[in-house]
Amino acid sequence: MTELPESEVDVLIIGAGPAGLMLALWLARLGVKTRIVDKRTDKVYSGQADGFQVRSLEILDSFGVGERVWKEANRMLEISFWNPDSNGAIFRSAHSVNTIPGLSRFTESVLHQGRIEGFFLDAIRDSDTPDQALRVERMVIPTSLEIEESAVEDADAHPVTVTLRHLTEEEATPTQMLSNLADGIFRSNLADDDVGDILERSKAREARDEIVRAKYVVGCDGAHSWTRKTLGKEFEMKGETTDAIWGVMDIVPITDFPDIRFRTMIHSTSGAIMIIPRENRMVRLYIQLKEVSAGSGRVDRSQITPDFIFKSAQKIFSPYKLEYHYCDWWTAYQIGQRTGDHFSKLDRVFLAGDAVHTHSPKAGQGMNVSMQDSYNLGWKIGLVSKGILPREVLSTYELERKKIAKDLIDFDGKFSKLFSGRPAKDIMDETGVSSDEFQKAFHTSRMFTTGVGVNYEPTVLVAKETEEGTDHGLKRSTAKSTQSLATNCKLGQRFPSHKVIRQSDARLWELHHKLPSNGRFRLVVFGGDISQQSQRDTVNNFGAWLKFYMPKLPTIKLLPGSDPHSGSMKFITDEDPSIVDVLLVHSAPRDKIDLLGDVHEVYHPFDPKLGWDYDKVFADGETYYEEPARAYEKYGIDKSKGAVVGLRPDGYVGLVTPVSEEGQQEIEKWFGGIFQHE
Amino acid sequence: MTELPESEVDVLIIGAGPAGLMLALWLARLGVKTRIVDKRTDKVYSGQADGFQVRSLEILDSFGVGERVWKEANRMLEISFWNPDSNGAIFRSAHSVNTIPGLSRFTESVLHQGRIEGFFLDAIRDSDTPDQALRVERMVIPTSLEIEESAVEDADAHPVTVTLRHLTEEEATPTQMLSNLADGIFRSNLADDDVGDILERSKAREARDEIVRAKYVVGCDGAHSWTRKTLGKEFEMKGETTDAIWGVMDIVPITDFPDIRFRTMIHSTSGAIMIIPRENRMVRLYIQLKEVSAGSGRVDRSQITPDFIFKSAQKIFSPYKLEYHYCDWWTAYQIGQRTGDHFSKLDRVFLAGDAVHTHSPKAGQGMNVSMQDSYNLGWKIGLVSKGILPREVLSTYELERKKIAKDLIDFDGKFSKLFSGRPAKDIMDETGVSSDEFQKAFHTSRMFTTGVGVNYEPTVLVAKETEEGTDHGLKRSTAKSTQSLATNCKLGQRFPSHKVIRQSDARLWELHHKLPSNGRFRLVVFGGDISQQSQRDTVNNFGAWLKFYMPKLPTIKLLPGSDPHSGSMKFITDEDPSIVDVLLVHSAPRDKIDLLGDVHEVYHPFDPKLGWDYDKVFADGETYYEEPARAYEKYGIDKSKGAVVGLRPDGYVGLVTPVSEEGQQEIEKWFGGIFQHE
Repeated sequence: MTELPESEVDVLIIGAGPAGLMLALWLARLGVKTRIVDKRTDKVYSGQADGFQVRSLEILDSFGVGERVWKEANRMLEISFWNPDSNGAIFRSAHSVNTIPGLSRFTESVLHQGRIEGFFLDAIRDSDTPDQALRVERMVIPTSLEIEESAVEDADAHPVTVTLRHLTEEEATPTQMLSNLADGIFRSNLADDDVGDILERSKAREARDEIVRAKYVVGCDGAHSWTRKTLGKEFEMKGETTDAIWGVMDIVPITDFPDIRFRTMIHSTSGAIMIIPRENRMVRLYIQLKEVSAGSGRVDRSQITPDFIFKSAQKIFSPYKLEYHYCDWWTAYQIGQRTGDHFSKLDRVFLAGDAVHTHSPKAGQGMNVSMQDSYNLGWKIGLVSKGILPREVLSTYELERKKIAKDLIDFDGKFSKLFSGRPAKDIMDETGVSSDEFQKAFHTSRMFTTGVGVNYEPTVLVAKETEEGTDHGLKRSTAKSTQSLATNCKLGQRFPSHKVIRQSDARLWELHHKLPSNGRFRLVVFGGDISQQSQRDTVNNFGAWLKFYMPKLPTIKLLPGSDPHSGSMKFITDEDPSIVDVLLVHSAPRDKIDLLGDVHEVYHPFDPKLGWDYDKVFADGETYYEEPARAYEKYGIDKSKGAVVGLRPDGYVGLVTPVSEEGQQEIEKWFGGIFQHE
Repeated sequence: MTELPESEVDVLIIGAGPAGLMLALWLARLGVKTRIVDKRTDKVYSGQADGFQVRSLEILDSFGVGERVWKEANRMLEISFWNPDSNGAIFRSAHSVNTIPGLSRFTESVLHQGRIEGFFLDAIRDSDTPDQALRVERMVIPTSLEIEESAVEDADAHPVTVTLRHLTEEEATPTQMLSNLADGIFRSNLADDDVGDILERSKAREARDEIVRAKYVVGCDGAHSWTRKTLGKEFEMKGETTDAIWGVMDIVPITDFPDIRFRTMIHSTSGAIMIIPRENRMVRLYIQLKEVSAGSGRVDRSQITPDFIFKSAQKIFSPYKLEYHYCDWWTAYQIGQRTGDHFSKLDRVFLAGDAVHTHSPKAGQGMNVSMQDSYNLGWKIGLVSKGILPREVLSTYELERKKIAKDLIDFDGKFSKLFSGRPAKDIMDETGVSSDEFQKAFHTSRMFTTGVGVNYEPTVLVAKETEEGTDHGLKRSTAKSTQSLATNCKLGQRFPSHKVIRQSDARLWELHHKLPSNGRFRLVVFGGDISQQSQRDTVNNFGAWLKFYMPKLPTIKLLPGSDPHSGSMKFITDEDPSIVDVLLVHSAPRDKIDLLGDVHEVYHPFDPKLGWDYDKVFADGETYYEEPARAYEKYGIDKSKGAVVGLRPDGYVGLVTPVSEEGQQEIEKWFGGIFQHE
């Protein structure tokens, strides 16, 4: 046998679905040496996941990808509930708002998974540098993974060894697809995994294997995760599987049902349907299949055909008519919820997305929670690989994301049960699900399902008080926050976006657009009314301290794509900026402030080739062209006192502290705990 | 001599600058067989035009290109005026709004010409069909043009014969560029045209000529237009040339001047400067060069170097400091205004853009008026070529655009004089230009410079009363409009965009996004409060008439890109729709209306494969997520009566008429005059 080729990489990503691609994009933007492999021949072309929750859209927008989704996706703004009347005929029992208004500049939206995968691939390509052009290596599967345990704490080591096998096109094509293109079940949880088949078929090809030594490996390889299985028994997922089977169809409906372009939940005596109006005149129907059941064993898949699923839908829609000419995709699945106890092994091999949590698709959570897993992990692995963060930050990944996965499967279990339940006949029908009960459950879950409700626990990254029963064992920050200074910038939660006005040119910006995902922490200095001399002195004294303190922090090289919304202020400096970006948002009348004359230069740094930076100071208040900005009010910050809000690179609030000497000390403690620079 | 290859084309465009590319995009979207040739080797990479006025942005947005400009461009929201004080030191004499608020969803913006040329090329590529993949043929010049006069009135004839020469790269490269890459003057009006040189150099290559027979030829070939010269003496441009010379530099400034990111006009005792803050931290400076003059003859170009121009700028900026490290581009030009008497020969060969009007660049008009020329021409040539419109519509091009060109050079003459004039020392200084006078001139010109002020005269296309002194000799529409029904939808002016709410799914849309440039005329039926039975009957009776009338009109094949904002409602029908698109905007409470049950089907047409069309009915009023729409108020339409607004394919208002039998008659007359279908 010939010797296999060997190489080193910082991060190896297994699986190029939404979770893997999100991670790849992060690492590309950070300039981390990365490879990403996938067993399939190509990205998803139709069907699969489609729901985008508002937090996901905000995250995608922080990479400059969100606006493409936002433009093409269908927006689900309102929701209808239909129930059977006393004669069993369905009627609209309620119609209301879908996403909570004011929560975000985005609303829940729908676009098929293949498009976002394509957008990720484009964005990764836009991050090319002379050192790296990261591309998905398709038709590649791992065949072995080993961790050299003695080296795991050595930051510079490559202790994970993975053997990769390069497949032929035939080997990589699922057998189900070879035999029957129209079978939408091959990727559903009713189908077996095909990695075993692929391995069997490709056995003769060992000569095309290679060995990769990685600092970190991340398994984003879906519900049948090879990575998870390889890590051993303690990584097995646990949970419930019900016997309820649902069908899914993406069709262009021909119907007289009046709410077909609204998100709609129908509970009829013939079963339940959820309508998800899609892009391109399509509608996705989730259809309860009451006539099949998994029972104690496996369901008979041969029963489940598009015709069978559609006939179930027609019954539920009755007396409204439903037909179709175009069907884009269909599948069926069995409801169940499972998650694992461990999201990482030795903080060297990680699992993300469906590889550690699976559930039913109807709440449009799967792709979102998966992308948010790797969004949480990406900057940590990236900055640790680059030597900017210590390894111990990596343990916050499992802490922060395991809780979300648990909340998710709890929510999904409850929601699915309510949804699959028999609708109550009347108010006395206690075993049926009443329309009120269902609506209430739906609305109370909204804060969770939007993704905005995520609240990370206190660690070195989030300087907040310990809540009861949260002794997770990880190190805490020694800094103390003063949450009351910024009541709507909740510690551990994502910093919201509101509009502010650029001092230098009066342009309104979503503040999020000045906080792109490029690896930088942020101090947003809400300086208050700096047209008052004393407040101006306070802010400028704070600036003088920053000027002295900042050089103690690491710097970071910014790469193409790192400022995707900059438009007129594109980044072209030669110098590596600090890992901490400083923005000033004041509440003085804009025309009373002279950017260069009144404000300390740390807020408009000078570059010898580019001059002053005009993109760091923002005002609240009036403009000629839009409603006045009301940032201070919306962030819950007092205009006379202000506040400093410290943000992690993923936009979560880690510190709230005053613009004062006390604030300086807390900032030193916060960053001291994170970077261990002292 | 071997025989030259011959071919036929509907439209041949000479010149691929903004005017030519706008025309090419129109024709690509309409599926008209087109060729576009350009003498240069590539698109513009830096410098040249940069100003986008709001009407241009609206037009670009109607092709789906606007958002790319809007994202990348720098927006100029406010303007500063600086003047010398009694000691000669400059001070900020005024600061105010730049674009008139409320005029448009866009504001004046700046991005260099090369980007918009790139966006056009992308959009043209996105319009590819199996029949045509329109590409710019570079390094190609025309060498002869002849019109077969006897055939000009035959709609199917190809009476224009052009010989094209295919150049080598060396032949196509301007001699100035070959000798000195840094010389920014080679494209300015201080340089001679180089077509003569090119022809001379390429003489030996006649064998690479070809003959093209075209229905129509459009010269978009710039100030030195070969097409114009070839058409003969009566096409010569006339006008003034002053002796004032100005320099232009695109730099990343290093300065303590406080208004460097605002559009700023400085009048100092050392001359005048206009500051145009640009994308990518750049600033364009227009700098009066007082120490050179064209006098009666040609200016000595060797004097004009970047160093010379920049020293003039530094003097004017004094006491503020000005330096730079990066210079992207520079040029110089002589102020003058010229236009021609004729924009077309026999309505077979047309001129557009700089080929028929040149002026100074400081008001950011050139690229805008040029693109608007060919935007006006594109749908007319396109629909005439396709046999949908009669040839006589073509004569409206010269009528409509010659007036704009004249207004433009009048405006520019006045504005340039004021700008180059000596600033007044004090109120008694009558020969100097006072700050007040200059500001007043600036603000009164805003409606014109935005492009929104354009007001086309009555013809078959615009059914309005003749104004005094406008006997232009072209046929008028026999329809009569009732302007008072829609006071802010001015006949002859562009239909403004306001937000409306889609009935089927509650999504807010800019109404412009439902009026893309795809060749269709529109009837926007403002139906009023259709929750009232009588008003609903009125609107549905009108619908019943439309259903009967519409089949008399031509149909049009819609091509890829024809609905660039559709997002979730992408067009996938097999059937050719009517040349007239019907939209309903009602003012009833949205939840009181059942789209399928209450509203005549002409407003939500049925397609046997796609079902009902959910994208044609819109409401005014409340939504959960944004400020309430106030479309009726903003369009100046009474909610109890409503109105029908008829739009040309370029979005200009051609008819305002009641939702009634009277309206039906006026619509028949209006379209009857345009399509001559009876």
